Amino acid sequence: MTQRNWSVPETEVVQRIRDRLDADGTDVLATVVDIEGNAYRRPGAKMLLDAEGTGVGSITAGCLEDELVQVASEVRAAGEPRLVTYDLMEDDEGDVWGLGVGCNGVIEVLLEPLTETYRPAVSAFADGRDVAVVTVLDGDDGPLERGDRAYYDPVDGSLSTPAADPAAWPADALAGSAADLAERGRAATVTVDGLTLFVDGLSAPPELVVFGTGHDVGPVTELAAKSDFRVTVVGFRGAVDLADQFPAADRALTTSPASIADDLTLGGNTYAVVMTHNFVDDRLTVEALLDASVPYVGLMGPRDRFEEMRDAFDEEGRTFTEAELSSLYTPVGLDLGGGSPYQIAHSIVAEVLAVANDRTPRHLKAREGPIHERVDVDAGADADTGVPR
Amino acid sequence: MTQRNWSVPETEVVQRIRDRLDADGTDVLATVVDIEGNAYRRPGAKMLLDAEGTGVGSITAGCLEDELVQVASEVRAAGEPRLVTYDLMEDDEGDVWGLGVGCNGVIEVLLEPLTETYRPAVSAFADGRDVAVVTVLDGDDGPLERGDRAYYDPVDGSLSTPAADPAAWPADALAGSAADLAERGRAATVTVDGLTLFVDGLSAPPELVVFGTGHDVGPVTELAAKSDFRVTVVGFRGAVDLADQFPAADRALTTSPASIADDLTLGGNTYAVVMTHNFVDDRLTVEALLDASVPYVGLMGPRDRFEEMRDAFDEEGRTFTEAELSSLYTPVGLDLGGGSPYQIAHSIVAEVLAVANDRTPRHLKAREGPIHERVDVDAGADADTGVPR
Repeated sequence: MTQRNWSVPETEVVQRIRDRLDADGTDVLATVVDIEGNAYRRPGAKMLLDAEGTGVGSITAGCLEDELVQVASEVRAAGEPRLVTYDLMEDDEGDVWGLGVGCNGVIEVLLEPLTETYRPAVSAFADGRDVAVVTVLDGDDGPLERGDRAYYDPVDGSLSTPAADPAAWPADALAGSAADLAERGRAATVTVDGLTLFVDGLSAPPELVVFGTGHDVGPVTELAAKSDFRVTVVGFRGAVDLADQFPAADRALTTSPASIADDLTLGGNTYAVVMTHNFVDDRLTVEALLDASVPYVGLMGPRDRFEEMRDAFDEEGRTFTEAELSSLYTPVGLDLGGGSPYQIAHSIVAEVLAVANDRTPRHLKAREGPIHERVDVDAGADADTGVPR
Repeated sequence: MTQRNWSVPETEVVQRIRDRLDADGTDVLATVVDIEGNAYRRPGAKMLLDAEGTGVGSITAGCLEDELVQVASEVRAAGEPRLVTYDLMEDDEGDVWGLGVGCNGVIEVLLEPLTETYRPAVSAFADGRDVAVVTVLDGDDGPLERGDRAYYDPVDGSLSTPAADPAAWPADALAGSAADLAERGRAATVTVDGLTLFVDGLSAPPELVVFGTGHDVGPVTELAAKSDFRVTVVGFRGAVDLADQFPAADRALTTSPASIADDLTLGGNTYAVVMTHNFVDDRLTVEALLDASVPYVGLMGPRDRFEEMRDAFDEEGRTFTEAELSSLYTPVGLDLGGGSPYQIAHSIVAEVLAVANDRTPRHLKAREGPIHERVDVDAGADADTGVPR
């Protein structure tokens, strides 16, 4: 069994799910639905296994994947979802499964045949829409069965139930936690009206828009794509063959600084890096981005270069407040000390990740509290202990 | 002309130099020897151009590369080094070279035919030895000519002069700055005894040793290699085909926790990440690394996992002081908020970069002073103004 694709960006896992749906494969989707203790991945982590045992995605860094391939083949044969619990708590010997590769925690995994019931999830993801995928783990002997699925749209608060009786779903009681998880891109198992439901908040991947076409852009697009940003490269006049030059980008387009707001969707999910190396282009671009109030504008160059831009803004009567400028990061990137194109790109992507995840970039060693904060889910659920049911 | 290789890790540029030396090519090496203002790269940045105009390495993010290809062909034909200065200061129009791609600063570039006089540099790099490459820019009408080269070994303080009269070199006056630049991996143009010399401190790339063979290791090796670490993957019992599993690693080996210090060179240039997911293996590995006083030991897992290890250390009578533990980072990585394998790897490599470069990881926006600190070079040199001569 090839290991080549075990660890890929999450966006690739979702893409693979869509490809396999399109191919009418007999893949099995394995999802971590609950954890206790210190597990490698959070609830929502996914792995897709085909009939040859080839996997995409990684749930336990390798200690359970072989086991899961076996269970997946049983699920494939039976055609029914299964819920399995693995107690991987390290004992003093540190040796679990006799593999010499210890693992941590207790994890509960739902394995199910991948079917068209999953289509709305991948469509939302591709369209850049947040969605919460609600899957029944235990129907409590009612009309719903394990594997039944509904979709919660956080924008209009509606619950769509493609293949089951809408009335069977506790839509109102579910709405609060579903909306919260969808917005945060987190997942949890919740108990609502006696039903045990896995609510998987798939938040649309953030978009990184890179303005520039120099040799320093490629490394930024590569690293950002690996960290699950949808990447767009924007060039101005004279830019040709951008898609060929930047194969790691999802999209490439040529426009003019004045048309940025027209040609791009600048919103709350847009993170921009401005690196055209042209003062006027950079200035016009920064202005358009600040006007659109995107959450992050990283400007390459030293601090005083932006001070000159501010003078220009003031002269044209467009003065930005400190609040408006709080989303501007210049010089761009974290202070990691590197000077090569990839090291600079690494510091830029690290900064964007921190801002997108609302974290203060510092050593985890220095941070209080757990690494993965427990998901607190409101009314009707008791997911916050992380105890498997 | 293909742009595919313009931006590659610096280690690849040096590797390419060695390959082209071995191939007896007619390549031209272009090196930034001095800068003024805000240039894209620091002195020491290199680009190698072959007769077809294919380049590896990037000096100005694209605004001068075409120009340099032209100059390189002239240098190739003439067979003599040339020193060229480009004044790229942005004017108010921000438009330099009519390309619509503005650039910054004043840069001075030495272009020279790549010859065997460069061999000692790539050999030292490959052997993991620091070296300062000293190249004459202006011989002041003395016995030395532009392009003449000597090598300073910071370990024994010796200056070797493969192709020129040793007496012509101001070895004593040069020693201080050469040692300093070699240790820091920085470069500068210095004036010593009337000679204008470019001193390029090539410090051996730091080594990242990753202990573990799970699916989370691959992303760490890939990102670290791109950021110019020499990467070694270490597996313990049961690990097979590591080189195949981790193609981005420079080296892979299987050993036992008790033999780490024997099978690996653990020194001041070693940065280790411990992620075997096996408590006992991790504990023995951490102990060996702390005993060897390597500058960085990143341990995956939550904080209390290490507290258990400390208890075990205490029980066996090996208590580490706070000073010894200052090089331990657990939970490993910077707080960037990501949870996927690549996002975790990104945070780990970001942390190692910061520690290796002696930086406090924070937004550059929040840091005082310039991004690239000016190189201060001692006695006999006046390189600190960065003004080209």
